[in-house]
Amino acid sequence: MSFNTFGKIFRFTTWGESHGPAIGCIVDGCPPKIQIKVEEIQKELNKRKPGQSKFTTQRKEDDKVEILSGMFEGKTTGTPISMIIYNKDMRSKDYGNIKNKFRPGHADFTYFQKYGIRDYRGGGRQSARETASRVAAGAIAKKVLQTKLGKKYNVIGGVTRLGILGCDLNNWRDKEISKNPLFCPDKSVVKLWEKYLLGIRKAGSSCGAVIEVRARGVPVGLGAPIYSKLDMDLASAMMSINAVKGVNIGSGMNSAQLSGEQNSDEMSKKGKKTKFYSNNAGGILGGISSGQEIVVSFAVKPTSSILSQRKTIDKFGKNTSISVKGRHDPCVGIRAVPIGEAMMHCVILDHYLLNKAQCGN
Amino acid sequence: MSFNTFGKIFRFTTWGESHGPAIGCIVDGCPPKIQIKVEEIQKELNKRKPGQSKFTTQRKEDDKVEILSGMFEGKTTGTPISMIIYNKDMRSKDYGNIKNKFRPGHADFTYFQKYGIRDYRGGGRQSARETASRVAAGAIAKKVLQTKLGKKYNVIGGVTRLGILGCDLNNWRDKEISKNPLFCPDKSVVKLWEKYLLGIRKAGSSCGAVIEVRARGVPVGLGAPIYSKLDMDLASAMMSINAVKGVNIGSGMNSAQLSGEQNSDEMSKKGKKTKFYSNNAGGILGGISSGQEIVVSFAVKPTSSILSQRKTIDKFGKNTSISVKGRHDPCVGIRAVPIGEAMMHCVILDHYLLNKAQCGN
Amino acid sequence: MSFNTFGKIFRFTTWGESHGPAIGCIVDGCPPKIQIKVEEIQKELNKRKPGQSKFTTQRKEDDKVEILSGMFEGKTTGTPISMIIYNKDMRSKDYGNIKNKFRPGHADFTYFQKYGIRDYRGGGRQSARETASRVAAGAIAKKVLQTKLGKKYNVIGGVTRLGILGCDLNNWRDKEISKNPLFCPDKSVVKLWEKYLLGIRKAGSSCGAVIEVRARGVPVGLGAPIYSKLDMDLASAMMSINAVKGVNIGSGMNSAQLSGEQNSDEMSKKGKKTKFYSNNAGGILGGISSGQEIVVSFAVKPTSSILSQRKTIDKFGKNTSISVKGRHDPCVGIRAVPIGEAMMHCVILDHYLLNKAQCGN
Amino acid sequence: MSFNTFGKIFRFTTWGESHGPAIGCIVDGCPPKIQIKVEEIQKELNKRKPGQSKFTTQRKEDDKVEILSGMFEGKTTGTPISMIIYNKDMRSKDYGNIKNKFRPGHADFTYFQKYGIRDYRGGGRQSARETASRVAAGAIAKKVLQTKLGKKYNVIGGVTRLGILGCDLNNWRDKEISKNPLFCPDKSVVKLWEKYLLGIRKAGSSCGAVIEVRARGVPVGLGAPIYSKLDMDLASAMMSINAVKGVNIGSGMNSAQLSGEQNSDEMSKKGKKTKFYSNNAGGILGGISSGQEIVVSFAVKPTSSILSQRKTIDKFGKNTSISVKGRHDPCVGIRAVPIGEAMMHCVILDHYLLNKAQCGN
Repeated sequence: MSFNTFGKIFRFTTWGESHGPAIGCIVDGCPPKIQIKVEEIQKELNKRKPGQSKFTTQRKEDDKVEILSGMFEGKTTGTPISMIIYNKDMRSKDYGNIKNKFRPGHADFTYFQKYGIRDYRGGGRQSARETASRVAAGAIAKKVLQTKLGKKYNVIGGVTRLGILGCDLNNWRDKEISKNPLFCPDKSVVKLWEKYLLGIRKAGSSCGAVIEVRARGVPVGLGAPIYSKLDMDLASAMMSINAVKGVNIGSGMNSAQLSGEQNSDEMSKKGKKTKFYSNNAGGILGGISSGQEIVVSFAVKPTSSILSQRKTIDKFGKNTSISVKGRHDPCVGIRAVPIGEAMMHCVILDHYLLNKAQCGN
Repeated sequence: MSFNTFGKIFRFTTWGESHGPAIGCIVDGCPPKIQIKVEEIQKELNKRKPGQSKFTTQRKEDDKVEILSGMFEGKTTGTPISMIIYNKDMRSKDYGNIKNKFRPGHADFTYFQKYGIRDYRGGGRQSARETASRVAAGAIAKKVLQTKLGKKYNVIGGVTRLGILGCDLNNWRDKEISKNPLFCPDKSVVKLWEKYLLGIRKAGSSCGAVIEVRARGVPVGLGAPIYSKLDMDLASAMMSINAVKGVNIGSGMNSAQLSGEQNSDEMSKKGKKTKFYSNNAGGILGGISSGQEIVVSFAVKPTSSILSQRKTIDKFGKNTSISVKGRHDPCVGIRAVPIGEAMMHCVILDHYLLNKAQCGN
Repeated sequence: MSFNTFGKIFRFTTWGESHGPAIGCIVDGCPPKIQIKVEEIQKELNKRKPGQSKFTTQRKEDDKVEILSGMFEGKTTGTPISMIIYNKDMRSKDYGNIKNKFRPGHADFTYFQKYGIRDYRGGGRQSARETASRVAAGAIAKKVLQTKLGKKYNVIGGVTRLGILGCDLNNWRDKEISKNPLFCPDKSVVKLWEKYLLGIRKAGSSCGAVIEVRARGVPVGLGAPIYSKLDMDLASAMMSINAVKGVNIGSGMNSAQLSGEQNSDEMSKKGKKTKFYSNNAGGILGGISSGQEIVVSFAVKPTSSILSQRKTIDKFGKNTSISVKGRHDPCVGIRAVPIGEAMMHCVILDHYLLNKAQCGN
Repeated sequence: MSFNTFGKIFRFTTWGESHGPAIGCIVDGCPPKIQIKVEEIQKELNKRKPGQSKFTTQRKEDDKVEILSGMFEGKTTGTPISMIIYNKDMRSKDYGNIKNKFRPGHADFTYFQKYGIRDYRGGGRQSARETASRVAAGAIAKKVLQTKLGKKYNVIGGVTRLGILGCDLNNWRDKEISKNPLFCPDKSVVKLWEKYLLGIRKAGSSCGAVIEVRARGVPVGLGAPIYSKLDMDLASAMMSINAVKGVNIGSGMNSAQLSGEQNSDEMSKKGKKTKFYSNNAGGILGGISSGQEIVVSFAVKPTSSILSQRKTIDKFGKNTSISVKGRHDPCVGIRAVPIGEAMMHCVILDHYLLNKAQCGN
């Protein structure tokens, strides 16, 4: 039971609205004596920050994080870590247009129906601004895991589809991802993607994306069947990200089309190491990590704030139409890469701690 | 924190192994004074029961459920409802072959790695036999929701893809689903599917499937952002089902390929009712139900127990190969339909109660 | 959120009514590879069993426990352990008298008000019969802790007050407790207590009791401040036992009357060991175990089923009076000793696992 | 599972250390559309604030609370409410003495043992300063309950014992409590108490206290047996307050000394109302509220920071002695009154919402 809390042992609670004074995050259950610098958290936040390229919203936010508790002399103390990010660039006037109208395909409608009240300024709590808090939590989880598991542990995400344009997964190169503003791991398609997205932005339209996140160096044995399976928690984590509509583990939806022979990831021993001949399972069997690379992908739908006139209703129950101007991401999916990475870190750390508890490994 | 419990207020806990004396389920948090007959639960269980057609495992199980607590004079009392199903057809000898070997793509390997011990008889706790417990819990959730929401509330699931064969969703007819052993809603493809699956069974191979589950009559406002979103909990629910590797809400993974214009589900008022012109969102916006039909689909991978010789290792760390004979489903996906329905009922009831708590609706 | 579940990682869920077919318990989160014999669980249950002396209810129950899951070849597998105890001696006719009337001071009234329905047979779910399930769970927790911590770990409870009669805590001898039917650790008062309780039983009256439970060999560092403090969870555990109205840790309520000097438990080092000069804290400081003996005591109120005529109302809202005949414990507190021990084991194991998770100790 | 979170549906999470930049609290699960002014929260905080009389620590803190989220146009929105209180008067030099030594009877020792690191400045997270956060959360719970239940709902606490001095509960007058700096409801003993406490303060010693908290206008039916009983959660709530060692519900520990006849709270109907002739149960039967006044009392041990020289050890494992100078409360119990009230509000609201969920009342 936790409306705004994620996790079981390593838990984070987020708060704050798009246009309130600040947003923030409490991380609880963090192991003690982990060395963390605020710069390490800031570095992750900077990846998600808006206004970094022509492909993202022009809202200007430093996303500067402050740590208010839970650290002493540079180390975690085992008590809750409170982090705060002040909002800076809040032009409330931009949102006058959508004060009373619901954007089709947006949570405007359902928030108002559920709560009977909503903070319409910039989407309030519905805004993807909340995800900055997760990135901060994820940065802590990452540092804990690196401390416990060593350098072999790492997580990397990339955009593998931009609207109607895919990429070749065989061309995935980790180091390419940070070299282009679209977080694409396949160098060969970047130019095409950029041109395509610029066209969409100019048309005041939007497109979706698929993000893939990979975790390496995850020990075998993480995940607690039946109802705390690792893949279940990863699906839950990714689906909680704004605008996500689908989640795959390994071959995902495509696994329905494989034969039993194609799908079975054969194994052999090479010395003490278990070698797998393929990874359709995405590193998870029966809800437990197998020691292989964990592979999760998820689809982000197109932003619902678009320029085209759309039929809708207002909060008084009248028919009307809407066209959304102002600053928006033509593809919110791009900025979902560090969020997906953060959620991956958090889920893995949570299960790492859970496994320690029950199995002592 | 709940290894074998699912849900927040309406919670069920399952227990039991494939070849132990029994399996069972405790349902907690059920509202009082709901009339439930054991026959209503049995009816749902019978849909999942093995051995009903040539397309499922020939294990013979009555799956006869008994209620041990929580009911008095035909009504729920608000106390935990304990249900038990005795195992009948447990031919442990069938499993001698896999006692020490790990099936590629199966949880055999990870359970052993995690716990250092496993009940190898029929997969032990990993077996899909556990899902019978969920179906029993789902039958109770269904009855509660029907009592609270009336006849307009219903959930129906069907198989929309069988291996490489799809179907036409425009041909979906609810009533066709129970008329064919493959739970296919599109009459026009059933013959083809049957022939295809018989071929797979005869070859000792297996295939995957996609199941789609639809819920109608769900009130607007269910779902608690940010970390108890309705879609997040549905993704979690479906991903917890054995062999599921991908989950979609509405347009799901495909939403990445839509334009903002295509994706936005336009709205208008018709009297007091809100009308939507499309349902890419699958009835969920910002994690909250919109009042539209809720549409979830998920992919089930092919059964890992196949006849073909596959490279693998044994529990002593030796290289070996495996070929699995004995009774198995050529496509476990088929039997996942009532399970998906059950999980849908449970998640919706849970959020119905949660919404009552916070918002009093 | 867990109406009928106790614990965080090591969790048990109980179900069943006094006069239903059976009661039972699911233990989840138990570490794997722990050797447990059903006889070890039975032994604990036998301590709580009714009908063992003239001082307890004459209801005849074997309280024979069966394990239905979670064990394989004599060891826990890490999956849920389901235990069942069939009810035998259910003379429902005994309870005709209280079918429609509420016993003053009994949960009859509040259950009916809350749920609008109640199983009146023997108190239904309100019955202390539920506590047998906890004793079974506690037996498992005990075995896990003994396996992990060795012989130095043990828990012992005794009755330190029977109605108006106290005892001398300086006379506490562990081995005396099992030698008398009143579980009294002070040999010198047993005769007096027996005479007193016989008088109460003959008069159809009842009396309360104070139970003290001591845990030795508990490592320093268990307990998670601020809202999972060890003393908080122990208070919660003991207060959940039927008829308990007060809980003390160490000096408890009496600590209000101590001076700062008296209350401070001075410390010194003796080699590597920390020596404490007193234990007013009951082994818990700031919610964390100090390594000293953990001392919890709790008061059980007198049974509300008494022979004297008492003013009350019935379920139709009419004034009436009640006098309860039939089989009852003159002092339910006596049978609370093994229950208190069981709850102590469960809380300590839960925090042992939690501490492993966060602090890795 | 919630180290720093309290509650099930109405949940609050606290963070912050005594001498960090700030402390704070996130309230989650609050119903929407509740009108709350920051002044209403401040008013409750002012009751707990240090430095208000010669009987409390001279640390100067405004305890000025700011609301950072979850409110819009003066009303709650159903999203998390983040509150922050900046620390002002942090003289870290005061604590040099206890940097390496453990105060006997203080959490210094156990925190260091558990986490291997501790923020020694003013007790860090162990400090009772954390309770300001609870008072803020309680103020919100109070306003919600007043909005839902009307004026008949109220909670009042008082100090009923100060060290060796008791009071006469028959003299309890609500309005006296705020008239004296000791929160004593019995006017006749105030002078004596003041003199006694001044003596203790001058001697550099400390004493304990008993606090009683009463809730009126609580509906019948709150509390979820068996493991979310109302009394269980209240015991847990009160035991979580710093320095609390014992909790009573109604007659509490004393109920062990009553006869069945004395203890049974007889009932009769007067029109539609249920009248009780006594309230030994403290308004809770079987873990469910009966509609009577809910009465909880708890004992606070003497402050462990005293002037007398005490034997202790330091963090290097050496024997030493300690005498604590500096600003301290001679009786922390006094300031526990608003904390006890706050916890009462939070537990009652939580169960009010839970009951709405399951029973729809």
